[in-house]
Amino acid sequence: MLGVCYYPEHWPESLWAEDAREMVELGLRYVRIGEFAWSRLESAPGVFHFEWLDRAIDTLAQAGLSVIMCTPTATPPKWLIDLYPDILPVDIKTGTVRGFGSRRHYDFSSENYRREAMRISQVVAKRYGTHPAICGWQTDNEIACHDTAHSGSQNAKIAFQRWCKQFYGTIDKLNQAWGNVFWSMEYQSFEQIELPILAVTETSPSHQLAYRRFSSDQVVKFHDEMVDVIRAHAPNQFVTHNFIPMHDTQTDNFALAKKLDFVSYDNYPLGRTDLFFGDAPVAQFKKYMRTGHPDFSSYAFDQSRGISNSSFWVMEQQPGPVNWARHNPRPEKGMVRLWSWQAFAHGAEAVCYFRWRQVPFAQEQMHAGIKRNDNSRAAAYAEIAQVRDELKLIADLAEQPVQAKVAIVMTTENQWVTEIERQGDSFNQHKVEFGWYSALRQLGLAVDFVSPEHDLSPYQLIVAPCMPIVSQSFVDRCKASSALLVFGPRSGAKTSELTLVPNLGPGLLQQLIGVKVLSTETIRPDCYEELKLATKSGNSYQSTQWREELELSANTRVIASYHDKTPAVARDGRTLYVATLSCNSFLVDLFADLANELQLPILRLDESLRSVQRGNLHFVFNYSAKVQQVVAPQHADFLIGGSTIQPYDLAVLRLR
Amino acid sequence: MLGVCYYPEHWPESLWAEDAREMVELGLRYVRIGEFAWSRLESAPGVFHFEWLDRAIDTLAQAGLSVIMCTPTATPPKWLIDLYPDILPVDIKTGTVRGFGSRRHYDFSSENYRREAMRISQVVAKRYGTHPAICGWQTDNEIACHDTAHSGSQNAKIAFQRWCKQFYGTIDKLNQAWGNVFWSMEYQSFEQIELPILAVTETSPSHQLAYRRFSSDQVVKFHDEMVDVIRAHAPNQFVTHNFIPMHDTQTDNFALAKKLDFVSYDNYPLGRTDLFFGDAPVAQFKKYMRTGHPDFSSYAFDQSRGISNSSFWVMEQQPGPVNWARHNPRPEKGMVRLWSWQAFAHGAEAVCYFRWRQVPFAQEQMHAGIKRNDNSRAAAYAEIAQVRDELKLIADLAEQPVQAKVAIVMTTENQWVTEIERQGDSFNQHKVEFGWYSALRQLGLAVDFVSPEHDLSPYQLIVAPCMPIVSQSFVDRCKASSALLVFGPRSGAKTSELTLVPNLGPGLLQQLIGVKVLSTETIRPDCYEELKLATKSGNSYQSTQWREELELSANTRVIASYHDKTPAVARDGRTLYVATLSCNSFLVDLFADLANELQLPILRLDESLRSVQRGNLHFVFNYSAKVQQVVAPQHADFLIGGSTIQPYDLAVLRLR
Amino acid sequence: MLGVCYYPEHWPESLWAEDAREMVELGLRYVRIGEFAWSRLESAPGVFHFEWLDRAIDTLAQAGLSVIMCTPTATPPKWLIDLYPDILPVDIKTGTVRGFGSRRHYDFSSENYRREAMRISQVVAKRYGTHPAICGWQTDNEIACHDTAHSGSQNAKIAFQRWCKQFYGTIDKLNQAWGNVFWSMEYQSFEQIELPILAVTETSPSHQLAYRRFSSDQVVKFHDEMVDVIRAHAPNQFVTHNFIPMHDTQTDNFALAKKLDFVSYDNYPLGRTDLFFGDAPVAQFKKYMRTGHPDFSSYAFDQSRGISNSSFWVMEQQPGPVNWARHNPRPEKGMVRLWSWQAFAHGAEAVCYFRWRQVPFAQEQMHAGIKRNDNSRAAAYAEIAQVRDELKLIADLAEQPVQAKVAIVMTTENQWVTEIERQGDSFNQHKVEFGWYSALRQLGLAVDFVSPEHDLSPYQLIVAPCMPIVSQSFVDRCKASSALLVFGPRSGAKTSELTLVPNLGPGLLQQLIGVKVLSTETIRPDCYEELKLATKSGNSYQSTQWREELELSANTRVIASYHDKTPAVARDGRTLYVATLSCNSFLVDLFADLANELQLPILRLDESLRSVQRGNLHFVFNYSAKVQQVVAPQHADFLIGGSTIQPYDLAVLRLR
Ligand SMILES: [Zn+2]
Ligand SMILES: [Zn+2]
Ligand SMILES: [Zn+2]
Repeated sequence: MLGVCYYPEHWPESLWAEDAREMVELGLRYVRIGEFAWSRLESAPGVFHFEWLDRAIDTLAQAGLSVIMCTPTATPPKWLIDLYPDILPVDIKTGTVRGFGSRRHYDFSSENYRREAMRISQVVAKRYGTHPAICGWQTDNEIACHDTAHSGSQNAKIAFQRWCKQFYGTIDKLNQAWGNVFWSMEYQSFEQIELPILAVTETSPSHQLAYRRFSSDQVVKFHDEMVDVIRAHAPNQFVTHNFIPMHDTQTDNFALAKKLDFVSYDNYPLGRTDLFFGDAPVAQFKKYMRTGHPDFSSYAFDQSRGISNSSFWVMEQQPGPVNWARHNPRPEKGMVRLWSWQAFAHGAEAVCYFRWRQVPFAQEQMHAGIKRNDNSRAAAYAEIAQVRDELKLIADLAEQPVQAKVAIVMTTENQWVTEIERQGDSFNQHKVEFGWYSALRQLGLAVDFVSPEHDLSPYQLIVAPCMPIVSQSFVDRCKASSALLVFGPRSGAKTSELTLVPNLGPGLLQQLIGVKVLSTETIRPDCYEELKLATKSGNSYQSTQWREELELSANTRVIASYHDKTPAVARDGRTLYVATLSCNSFLVDLFADLANELQLPILRLDESLRSVQRGNLHFVFNYSAKVQQVVAPQHADFLIGGSTIQPYDLAVLRLR
Repeated sequence: MLGVCYYPEHWPESLWAEDAREMVELGLRYVRIGEFAWSRLESAPGVFHFEWLDRAIDTLAQAGLSVIMCTPTATPPKWLIDLYPDILPVDIKTGTVRGFGSRRHYDFSSENYRREAMRISQVVAKRYGTHPAICGWQTDNEIACHDTAHSGSQNAKIAFQRWCKQFYGTIDKLNQAWGNVFWSMEYQSFEQIELPILAVTETSPSHQLAYRRFSSDQVVKFHDEMVDVIRAHAPNQFVTHNFIPMHDTQTDNFALAKKLDFVSYDNYPLGRTDLFFGDAPVAQFKKYMRTGHPDFSSYAFDQSRGISNSSFWVMEQQPGPVNWARHNPRPEKGMVRLWSWQAFAHGAEAVCYFRWRQVPFAQEQMHAGIKRNDNSRAAAYAEIAQVRDELKLIADLAEQPVQAKVAIVMTTENQWVTEIERQGDSFNQHKVEFGWYSALRQLGLAVDFVSPEHDLSPYQLIVAPCMPIVSQSFVDRCKASSALLVFGPRSGAKTSELTLVPNLGPGLLQQLIGVKVLSTETIRPDCYEELKLATKSGNSYQSTQWREELELSANTRVIASYHDKTPAVARDGRTLYVATLSCNSFLVDLFADLANELQLPILRLDESLRSVQRGNLHFVFNYSAKVQQVVAPQHADFLIGGSTIQPYDLAVLRLR
Repeated sequence: MLGVCYYPEHWPESLWAEDAREMVELGLRYVRIGEFAWSRLESAPGVFHFEWLDRAIDTLAQAGLSVIMCTPTATPPKWLIDLYPDILPVDIKTGTVRGFGSRRHYDFSSENYRREAMRISQVVAKRYGTHPAICGWQTDNEIACHDTAHSGSQNAKIAFQRWCKQFYGTIDKLNQAWGNVFWSMEYQSFEQIELPILAVTETSPSHQLAYRRFSSDQVVKFHDEMVDVIRAHAPNQFVTHNFIPMHDTQTDNFALAKKLDFVSYDNYPLGRTDLFFGDAPVAQFKKYMRTGHPDFSSYAFDQSRGISNSSFWVMEQQPGPVNWARHNPRPEKGMVRLWSWQAFAHGAEAVCYFRWRQVPFAQEQMHAGIKRNDNSRAAAYAEIAQVRDELKLIADLAEQPVQAKVAIVMTTENQWVTEIERQGDSFNQHKVEFGWYSALRQLGLAVDFVSPEHDLSPYQLIVAPCMPIVSQSFVDRCKASSALLVFGPRSGAKTSELTLVPNLGPGLLQQLIGVKVLSTETIRPDCYEELKLATKSGNSYQSTQWREELELSANTRVIASYHDKTPAVARDGRTLYVATLSCNSFLVDLFADLANELQLPILRLDESLRSVQRGNLHFVFNYSAKVQQVVAPQHADFLIGGSTIQPYDLAVLRLR
């Protein structure tokens, strides 16, 4: 299913009907509206203007479109800010107020804002909660974007003190949990607690972790209340939220998604590639600058599916150059179609494009739309039309399940641990996780992202790229599973309060594998050293950045070694512990060994080809400028494309 | 004519007479004084001390020098700041007050400061406005230097709100002009308007452009009032201002210069080269580190001539190492003479050196003078003496006009557009403009910088390297002209409010050339791609950083193509549109083609040689360490030098 | 003698006795405690808890350990901050308060804090000043670390105004000394004086230097008062302080050390190497990433000995990976022993390790200890045990004096000059001084660091790598000496107020050598140029970054020349002036020439080997991964090791 984001308030009313007609012609079924319209809905306290929105909905509905309505809370209007200046958040790096003039200028700890945000949400939900043209709701917009999960305000401080009291009960327990004795940081009462910002030098990691947990809880609490407000008045409409990349929410994404019907994701492969791979050398960067890295979109898709309560949506799909990355190339011809199909291949139920027409004013005027601002059709138009036609060829797409045998364990908490405790400047949990994911995908393996609380029984291979905090219940679930388990460096090394486990790393995981981490070192990235994989004795790989010294118990054997012959990867029964970061080819070869052992079918395709299965559908994507040949699986018929795949083209086969 | 900057208040009175005598001996005619002397002229509110300055002027006059008097407003004294703390500006990046202790610590929106600055200006103008030794005035000093055109103060905010009311009339018009509906940024009254600073994420480009226009207007208003104050009391003396590089004023330079008799420029080729080319690789940087780039001084000279109402002056010429760049090399032996002659060659009426003697104290103690602080003669002394002697050989220099057939259209407004809307981080309007200028100069073409309101009739080739905002009147003037017109990327793409033109780029310029910009992409600089010039099919050039996709109308032909064969440069009749940034050699070859077509004589000299004509004088400058041979124009006689030019030497010929 | 840092308050009391026993077994004699324990000693104003500390001391003493007690003033507790918020310092770069939550959150200009710090110091000193188990005291901790010597508070401003009044007497003298006439910066009263921070552009260098002197005086005054408080109650116990690297104190280190019995140093070779050499290319960096640069520890040792009133201690020795550098590698096996012996070789009386056991919580949980947090023995344990055993082989170690014939003149004041007046961004006084030191050490020369007031008679070669401010009394002492004198660039160029000397550089040093500095230039580091040493005419070296043009008097001869044949190093009698920075090999060859002339024995060992003598003991250290051969001095016997030195191993010989 396809859809689009539309802002009727940005365009003359005379255009609406023709826009709606053309959307339908293009095969779009959903249209998302209302997202940033607060100043048009309420021009002064209590002065509402819904007629225009009523008319817009009617126009869209009459053309046959289903409407997704939004709460406009990402952009409180100026009159509200002037009424309650404490709505504005405070920058935790500088202590200055983050002012009005763009978006997301609100503090999750402002009681005034919470009340006002729920009030406007209720007004909108009441009006449209049972409107027949409206199929569902989006809460707010890209929550926590622009680093807004954290605030250094007085409101935040008081709320944090209350949260601490709730969490720890007594100040003694807090002092002990945080190790406040260390530098006489002990508090005598909860009212003395400071935010862990703007101190002379680094604050206690436990203090920082508590502040991140608190901030995440504030976001979830705010968002949950909004979902409740909507559901109270829109009992038969779905509620979703459009997520930014999981690493950027600074929020427990599983918790944030919990009350939603499903998760939506805003997919900008080129903008995100520019930011994520910006430090890559030309040879690595240039080949994917107009496509995005082959695993980058699917990484987000698989994560979104992982945190969703059902299938996921792409709520915003990049249709052309954007405006907000450091450099903003156009997609190669074909990529908008390819990304759309990649979303479906990884389980998406719907793909909506952002935005219908390029808006000629304000901050995003250089952000492409499906149509140009002169109302001509941009390059994406024809590609979407092609997707529309191709979707008709696979009527049962929605019923085809993604069935992964491989899971990556993902937790925001452990991301926080690595951000709080760098130890080596170059350690980047996001890149570590992506690296493991990409290695698995280069083998054609379907991957689920799961929380540690997830049922592990569907999986044969479970990997945790970086999981310093583990719970006994997770370890118990690992024990109960029959999967191969692979843990990356730092795993199990910390208690839930970000202190060292008493029995050395990997802590509780020692119940699974007989290793102890005797010491940890971090290394300048350009000073990498040799790494040797026992099964590939002729090959030389790289150990880089993070390196742990291991002591092995009798049953544990060495899978890979450092330049000085000491163990780098160890295995005990079904459990592997990877004590270092490495180059990509090491991970690919290591996972290939494990997949072979598990008799999981792997495909070692060209580095720019990716394949994935959804039910009995088999997809192949060509991310390169080369024409490539695909060896079709046996007993399969081409639904789209054929065994020769053009540049930036794809093939879909049905397995018989 | 030569001159010098002098600070009698920095030296014992006993030195003054001998200094004056030696200045005259060195051929200096002008001496600029009084610039930073407020605390010596007014030691407490209303307590004036002019006797010392009277004596200094008399001493200089008696030696035969003409004095340029300054208003001391760049350095308000501490007692004034303590009386009116709102004089201090506020940093727009941090929101903190920019304190006392250096210079330019005033806010152009402080009414208290405006009043006090005009008061002291009037006092000084009254006293010396008809003094026979004083030939003219310099206002303030290097206005807007140190990023002082902008302030984030409460004063600035209120003044901006008033400016908006004046400019837009109603708040509805402002909301519409800025596209405030976009993110519910609509204001209900002018009193709600914020400065576009310190927001959560980027503010509206239109809002930012309005703030830049406002800030520029504040600077011009302040400066205009000062010029009026001076003229009221000094009706027969010239008034000038010493400009910093045009790109750094953040002010409409044509407007700022309007009330002046002529423009002066402060020329620091090495310091500016260090800052401007600081990211260039060694091979490019080192060869010019002690000379400056061969086009760098003349770029500023031609711009100064362009904004001036008559000939221009160099008010401060670097005489040796300075103190304020990242690295501060000495000029190669001969360069002070060369730079001086280059100024004259490009139309300067006078060159004044900064400063007479190196001052042993305070911020600029490491800034060289003509004399060292022990009163010995620095290397520049002999070079200036040589200029003095050589000037006598060309008695009619002042009467020789610069007659350019090539014009570059320059506007501060369009610089603002590119600073506000980066789109690609590496886009640098200053470097783009300099690149086009340098390519023209490498062909020996004389270049004028003109405003869009300028008479275009003198020109055969008019280039606009980057001109997003164009007016219909400019387009009309282009139509009326018979020149070849070359527009760079982004040209015509924006309305005057920094929104997209309704008919796609190049907007109004589509009246001149049948092209439409279908999409725009920006590219990491190291990911450049091939560019092909139709007339030089064997050559390969580089398309880099910025790239637009063009649709051509039937009459429009392709002049150059991208790597994928799509058009990169198009031409329709007399108008060319260059849709990309490129390497230097591409621009040189493109402009050479056009000059040949126009039968403009070009000279392709060694990359380190430059030639230019002023009336019947022909100048050649050698920026290299090599001895070089010059092919003299026919019917020309050497006035200075000969056909063999030594390193860092020059030749002047008179055409018969 | 060996020792350890211990925090009984971090551990269950049940562990204390066994810890103490094991310390003694490991050969540790000293144990430092109490450093950050304020919140445990005084839980609320006047509510003291000393019983636990009494018990801890008794436990340690009973095991045979000597205790070093600390004042806990580096970490004022929260209740004290809440009582007197003006204790918190203000960041001079941003103007924001530096908050509670880590350590060193106090302003040296807070009168409230001064009083409270002395109060708690007195309480502790009274209680333990005559305790038999306590051998001595450490004041505070790492004073001035985390850039805390400077504060931008109102307290600091008022104290600075008073300091200025004291120092200059009248405001006229201050205005003259600072050259305030320059930009109308003249003050009319001391109450008008601002701190030289947060101004529009750079403030006067003299103003900045005064502020640094003031800040240093504040630190010394605070510290001196604390020493007095301790001595009043602990007349028979030593008092020391654990210094951070001398360049980082921003304090006159000689003054700070004056009242102490001896100086202690906190030695972290890997962390400091990461920060100091962080910009070095891989080839230079990687070989020492797990050892530190061969001269880096001894540089600190020799400096510590230089500012100490007797022998020095290492109060904190890195025992494994730390947590605070950008990357934190483990030491190569053997390095903890090697660093310990290197400290003894350079004159240490005791080496204490930081810390006994890795603490599982708070900011330093990733900082290794001698024991791991599970109480197992880390790699350092066995190395320390080896040192314990080896120390027994050299019973007379403490009586062996370091007898250097070479001295480096060191002043904090001149470091300030170069930090205030960069002139070239890449000028780094710390690296210049280290470069000269390293060149001397590569020749095996023992080096003393001396203040300009030091007796110069013991030395044959005295070098001053960068000494802009010199006094006449120092020049007189140089004249009286018979040593060869070598001055680096900038030397003698400034008055004591950071203004230019009236007779050009090297100012007063012109009494020693007939040179004048005609001009100074700074050069981008990658644009280095050729340098030629007269005695090695075949060799080519590099002149880099800083370069002065010299005029030589008749008696002065050229020792080295620039690429353009002008003089770069000059000599007149016993005095050399080095006018440029250079590559390492130039300095090594220059100093080798001078040592040969003085008949100082030099050893040109492999770049990774270092040798030094202490009395009749000769030490050789192997910083490389190679097995190396040592040519033993004649008439010497191996006490430790032999002529073949293993990687990271050492040898000690006794000269007969
Ligand atoms: Zn991320
Ligand atoms: Zn500029
Ligand atoms: Zn340092």
